[in-house]
Amino acid sequence: MTRLTPRELTQRMLKRRSVLCVGLDPDPNKIPAALDGEADPVYAFCRAIVEATSPFAIAYKVNLAYFEQLGRGGWSTLWRLRDILPEKSLLIADAKRADIGPSSEAYARALLDELAFHAVTVNPYMGVDSVAPFLERAGSWTFLLALTSNPGAADFQLEGTPPLWQRVMTRSQAWDRAGELGYVVGATRAEQFAEVRGLSPRSWLLVPGVGAQGGDLETVLKSGLSPVVEGEGGGLLINASRSILYASSGSDFADAAAKAAEKLVLQMAPHLPG
Amino acid sequence: MTRLTPRELTQRMLKRRSVLCVGLDPDPNKIPAALDGEADPVYAFCRAIVEATSPFAIAYKVNLAYFEQLGRGGWSTLWRLRDILPEKSLLIADAKRADIGPSSEAYARALLDELAFHAVTVNPYMGVDSVAPFLERAGSWTFLLALTSNPGAADFQLEGTPPLWQRVMTRSQAWDRAGELGYVVGATRAEQFAEVRGLSPRSWLLVPGVGAQGGDLETVLKSGLSPVVEGEGGGLLINASRSILYASSGSDFADAAAKAAEKLVLQMAPHLPG
Repeated sequence: MTRLTPRELTQRMLKRRSVLCVGLDPDPNKIPAALDGEADPVYAFCRAIVEATSPFAIAYKVNLAYFEQLGRGGWSTLWRLRDILPEKSLLIADAKRADIGPSSEAYARALLDELAFHAVTVNPYMGVDSVAPFLERAGSWTFLLALTSNPGAADFQLEGTPPLWQRVMTRSQAWDRAGELGYVVGATRAEQFAEVRGLSPRSWLLVPGVGAQGGDLETVLKSGLSPVVEGEGGGLLINASRSILYASSGSDFADAAAKAAEKLVLQMAPHLPG
Repeated sequence: MTRLTPRELTQRMLKRRSVLCVGLDPDPNKIPAALDGEADPVYAFCRAIVEATSPFAIAYKVNLAYFEQLGRGGWSTLWRLRDILPEKSLLIADAKRADIGPSSEAYARALLDELAFHAVTVNPYMGVDSVAPFLERAGSWTFLLALTSNPGAADFQLEGTPPLWQRVMTRSQAWDRAGELGYVVGATRAEQFAEVRGLSPRSWLLVPGVGAQGGDLETVLKSGLSPVVEGEGGGLLINASRSILYASSGSDFADAAAKAAEKLVLQMAPHLPG
């Protein structure tokens, strides 16, 4: 398994002039009718999206919820998809797992060893031993939830002095040994990216919420890309999902997805250094 | 699907004189050699444990991490196990999921509709819209993580005034409409059960950490069972896993599991009202 180091991902980002992460959370009710005859339409849809967007993306984020909801065959679809994801991109299991130590170890084995994703999203609520099994896998990345893009983020993440999300970022950096710990920060909280960068200039940020959720791409790029990006850290992965997956519901859905991805990347490029 | 209401679970607890929840988190390295010839040893092991303990348990808690770690066939094993779990017990998917609203909706569909578990454990970090899809399913139970049994619980849950775990309990009770919201409170925090009951006298508590993790059964029973238990709430589900699953590594493992379960229930019975 060759997995991207933080330095390699930085190089890839600068070379490709893109911080695009394509989110694969396929809604079974939105699969184009053109795929009705496929044995596994969700898989066929995702494969076509991946093929169409691979010239533009530097990462793919697979949302496990959308596969688990498919029922008895959902996990098989997930495995089938994993088999064709491009290894040169950062492959993220958006699983938002975490449990007591031995159970988190089992989740890490599932997602990073068995399914061989390169990265996983992890929930910090249960603290250090619930995160450690993910961090301890050298060569794998962990994206810890910090400040999420949903309305409910206000319930607990924004509370306290400093607010919980900041304590999560500050404390967890002491757990990281290899620069492989990044954070999930929603694009809908763009006004707080300067604070995020103040707390952690070198971490990679995984940023959902651009597009359908209302986050503004340019604001995120201006305040979220760290000045140290040309070194070995401080990059961004801006996730786009619905705006690419459902760019067209017709038989031209893959072409439309490619165009939507290209359009995003053209907006990103001017903000990248070099 | 007939699922237990809080009132029915109370009746079952009082009639059976048990608050035992058997935790199914099968370690593939600890499956008795007697099952080596089985096509799916993990399934065969769990089935035997369920059959042996069903006279004593009122709930089963399936830890999804232990199935996902099995690789490509893990989810099939989980489904096969689900098919034989006794519907008269409360069947809990210990999944510790939560995500933004639409993704939590997909997880709720996966665990409560497709797999038809009766209950699911949910992580509160992302707030109300990440929990709502689970709560909105009438007849299904949600156990929200409050104060967990692991060392890392001290990192964030114990911080703040009042501490985060108390704010989670206080705020989330406003989200509950049907008395189907309970809390995960670790037995290793037994000194705090009086506070837990002060905050939420009527909620059901799912209590891991007795036995292998060091929690004391009697302390939990004395301080965790609510005085309102004879009405329609305030019950406990005390989870035991390793002490039952691995009571013997020999071919008598199922008998040993039954004896371990019976022993726990005999310790529980005197503390139950009526």
